[in-house]
Amino acid sequence: DDAWLSVGDLRSKKLPKEPALDLTLFEKGMALRVLADGKRYQAEVLEVSAARARRAAPIKVRYAGYTAASDEWVGADRVSTKALSKKTGAESKPANKSDERQAVDELVSAGWVIPVETEGALQDHSIAVKDGKILDILPTSEAVKKYRGKSRTNLPNAAIMPGFVNTHSHAPMSFMRGISDDIPLSKWLHTAIWPIEQTLVGPEFVGDGARLAFAEMIMGGTTTTNEMYWCPEDICKAAVEAGIRAAVGMIAIEFPFGGYGTGPDDYLAKGEKMVEKYGKEPLLTFTVSLHAPYTVSDDTIQKGKALCEKYDVPLHIHMHETKEECSDSEKLNKDSNVCHMSTFEGTPLANLRRMGLVTPKLLAVHMTCLTDDEIKWMAEGKANVVHCPSSNLKLASGFCRVGDLLEAGVNVAIGTDGASSNNTVDMMAEMKLAAILAKAVAKNAEAVPADVALRMATLHGARALGLEDRIGSLKVGKEADMIAVDLSGLPLLPAPTSGRRDASFDPVTHIVYSSTRDQVTDVWVRGRRLLRSRKLLTINIAQVRRDAKRWGERITELLAELKRKATEEAAGADKAATGS
Amino acid sequence: DDAWLSVGDLRSKKLPKEPALDLTLFEKGMALRVLADGKRYQAEVLEVSAARARRAAPIKVRYAGYTAASDEWVGADRVSTKALSKKTGAESKPANKSDERQAVDELVSAGWVIPVETEGALQDHSIAVKDGKILDILPTSEAVKKYRGKSRTNLPNAAIMPGFVNTHSHAPMSFMRGISDDIPLSKWLHTAIWPIEQTLVGPEFVGDGARLAFAEMIMGGTTTTNEMYWCPEDICKAAVEAGIRAAVGMIAIEFPFGGYGTGPDDYLAKGEKMVEKYGKEPLLTFTVSLHAPYTVSDDTIQKGKALCEKYDVPLHIHMHETKEECSDSEKLNKDSNVCHMSTFEGTPLANLRRMGLVTPKLLAVHMTCLTDDEIKWMAEGKANVVHCPSSNLKLASGFCRVGDLLEAGVNVAIGTDGASSNNTVDMMAEMKLAAILAKAVAKNAEAVPADVALRMATLHGARALGLEDRIGSLKVGKEADMIAVDLSGLPLLPAPTSGRRDASFDPVTHIVYSSTRDQVTDVWVRGRRLLRSRKLLTINIAQVRRDAKRWGERITELLAELKRKATEEAAGADKAATGS
Ligand SMILES: [Zn+2]
Ligand SMILES: [Zn+2]
Repeated sequence: DDAWLSVGDLRSKKLPKEPALDLTLFEKGMALRVLADGKRYQAEVLEVSAARARRAAPIKVRYAGYTAASDEWVGADRVSTKALSKKTGAESKPANKSDERQAVDELVSAGWVIPVETEGALQDHSIAVKDGKILDILPTSEAVKKYRGKSRTNLPNAAIMPGFVNTHSHAPMSFMRGISDDIPLSKWLHTAIWPIEQTLVGPEFVGDGARLAFAEMIMGGTTTTNEMYWCPEDICKAAVEAGIRAAVGMIAIEFPFGGYGTGPDDYLAKGEKMVEKYGKEPLLTFTVSLHAPYTVSDDTIQKGKALCEKYDVPLHIHMHETKEECSDSEKLNKDSNVCHMSTFEGTPLANLRRMGLVTPKLLAVHMTCLTDDEIKWMAEGKANVVHCPSSNLKLASGFCRVGDLLEAGVNVAIGTDGASSNNTVDMMAEMKLAAILAKAVAKNAEAVPADVALRMATLHGARALGLEDRIGSLKVGKEADMIAVDLSGLPLLPAPTSGRRDASFDPVTHIVYSSTRDQVTDVWVRGRRLLRSRKLLTINIAQVRRDAKRWGERITELLAELKRKATEEAAGADKAATGS
Repeated sequence: DDAWLSVGDLRSKKLPKEPALDLTLFEKGMALRVLADGKRYQAEVLEVSAARARRAAPIKVRYAGYTAASDEWVGADRVSTKALSKKTGAESKPANKSDERQAVDELVSAGWVIPVETEGALQDHSIAVKDGKILDILPTSEAVKKYRGKSRTNLPNAAIMPGFVNTHSHAPMSFMRGISDDIPLSKWLHTAIWPIEQTLVGPEFVGDGARLAFAEMIMGGTTTTNEMYWCPEDICKAAVEAGIRAAVGMIAIEFPFGGYGTGPDDYLAKGEKMVEKYGKEPLLTFTVSLHAPYTVSDDTIQKGKALCEKYDVPLHIHMHETKEECSDSEKLNKDSNVCHMSTFEGTPLANLRRMGLVTPKLLAVHMTCLTDDEIKWMAEGKANVVHCPSSNLKLASGFCRVGDLLEAGVNVAIGTDGASSNNTVDMMAEMKLAAILAKAVAKNAEAVPADVALRMATLHGARALGLEDRIGSLKVGKEADMIAVDLSGLPLLPAPTSGRRDASFDPVTHIVYSSTRDQVTDVWVRGRRLLRSRKLLTINIAQVRRDAKRWGERITELLAELKRKATEEAAGADKAATGS
């Protein structure tokens, strides 16, 4: 039974008059219904007071849609919650010494639970979280009898699902969002991205930029991100502070980079130091992140491979981003700036295969150019593709054959790429785009159905990062990386009536095809709440704003200066040309 | 100064009571605005009478879009004209001696104003709104000296831009959101959409469904929608109630449709009745909406053409949605259910061209299949394409050559299509997808830059609907259909520093590439506020929720029943097959 019973109702039935409200049932942010002027209103708990003076009305509430002016202290006679109604069940005991329920850190109840591990959605289920892990998933009617949450969350209008795994990101690039749109890749790199990176990128830029991206990611439901960027130690630091899970790359590229080091040996040595320093952090794992076949030599790839084996971590690399990267590598057209650095005549993937790198440890990002044979190689090697649809479209890179890859059994995950080529880190949007784009590319409306897209955005990412046994789905024993998606908004009406795809309205298809990131209300990583009712709990937004303002101004100045210089150089060249 | 002052206003200031209207100001054919039933309507002077008997009402007017039956004689109390405002120019005196500022209905100031009419964004500008129109756009520092708003809105963190024009929608289908995803078009139609439509669609379903869609549209910044669906009178009713601007189709399809009528003649007759009934509504315009070449005969197309001419309205039609529609029509493969109904051997567009319909009045929706010649025809005919990228991808229909069309000079607008093939009516998302998808299709990262995408989603839609002189951009004299987009959220940091695309951070690219619909905070149509700080002002959300619940339950029951029947039939067929 799903009724919202008020304590007042109960009182008239079985409870003694003026019950002492069990305050452990309430917590800040919890949704309630409150009786006022004869009607029940949706409200949220602002404060719970154990003060004797507040005994009759110990709960301070904010009415939904009202301002602080309407806040009120209310008591047992006026509040109703599902948690209380469950207490009326057959064996319900008063909350005191005789409570035989097992204590857990948090008991999260929701209208729907979408495990991803199994198909479909479970109605009115709860998740018991203990020590950062999922201890149990069970119907709420049973959960409230079996578990007592130190913290109790009730989200009757939401679906709880695994957090998104953003499997390819350059978080610190968030400060470069929007400064170089609608121009071709090489101009993009040469006139904006590289000059800015060479001048500004260092530990501070990276830490500050990552913090902004992590804030945006958490607010959009991402609980894990796979990061490739300079100064990765500062990414680690920002991730640990934000409480987001991250796979951080030991990065390498063939050339010196002002802000970070002299070349691949230096970079990889610095990467190893990072692993030594941050290796014990429970939220961090690592990858070897090689930039791309056209920016790393076979020698560096071999060194990367050795590190992958040493630390048992994935090899993360941009691959086959454009058709030209493949065709110029096959022809060994060394005039092309996207021909791979190898002397092997073949596609970059053929080269990696030759080197024994097409394995479950390979995270090949983009892969917009793939032959049937190459798909077979990826499947046989159990290698992973990371699909970044927005970036591939925006940079006109091409179309990844996602449907064919999945059909061949290849694990395809989803990434946002950096905010300078997307321009968001919005996994909700990326998931929808992956689902619908794949259908048009495959010329098949049945390709990549909603549940597969949801799995790509969660479990497939976990698998690609070697974290499948820890995260990516809601399963007893896995860590509690999960999000709540509000299903009560107008864009999701009619509301789900069934957890089965074939029955009618379904939370999975509503989330994949009709939702936007703002419907993510709550986020947990390893059982810790990072977002509560859309409020960030671990990131100082004021600081993020100050940082963004400061770096934005520096970037604006720098671009103006680069422009002045380019104009002067052009004028100088003119002068030289006219011989004066 | 372009103000529309009413004679009533003037009277209170300097004119004697019951002024003899200065008839020299009026002439036949001159545009006026005329007060009727408390609202102002566009009208034209038919006759000016100096007769004493006509002294109180010396001007005979024809209302725009109306027949002679509505002609009226009006006087000083009901007419307003630009000519009159000119006369007040320099010598106009304040209503209040101590405040010399001109009174306007609303003065809206914002951090940025994006006119779309001109390039770039204006920092710290204001828009003065009077009588539903944009009276002035000027720097806020000047605006506050010049205008006194009866209502005053200050949005320092927002950009004001024209509202989105959703140029192809089936609003009432919102109740069918998500019930038949990831299946091919014909299965989609036969197992879910058509049975539901045949059983449930009628005035109530249409009105209720449209109301839900309009709520979602308004909350996402859409101010105008182009509607094709059954029972269009009920769409009109819902639009007028919601205050959203709509172009509503006189719909026709070749076959009888249970809930609405017997065939094309009946449908078009009903459409004409709609135009008669709703023709005076200032927010409504009309189209002839023919479903598709494979569902309407040449005869019906001719009748539609005649109606387009009679009412001077566009022809709205699904065209070239798939490659098969074109190739099967070229081969006249009558076994195909997407071969056009014509006996003409050629593509549906070639057929329309032959019939003289490739004109500025043509709104060809989808057009995923286009030859170079066909693009040339569209450009020469100044016809319009409505691009629906989400629907085209989700139904695996194909890819529209948007970049090539724009380059050829074709007006390309954007539509969401129905919520059952998208599954949202989210123009913000549709605009981004149009921009990035076009680049990959054109293999050119410079195709459809952000400002062009924004123009497609606004001004191009207005142009396609024949409303370019009234809406689609922020321009003095146009009607005030506008929205505020909050630029202060984390996903839009660093904040815009310049209104120029080449300078660095820019509001236009932030809106197109980084925004989601939840950042739309305020919406005005014809100067009337429909959304304030994300609260709907004209739609009863509780009612929408109740309706969605009721219709959702009926659809769920119906689908279960259809399933039972299908199972029984299959069992019966088995029985027959086994001879028992
Ligand atoms: Zn990347
Ligand atoms: Zn349509």
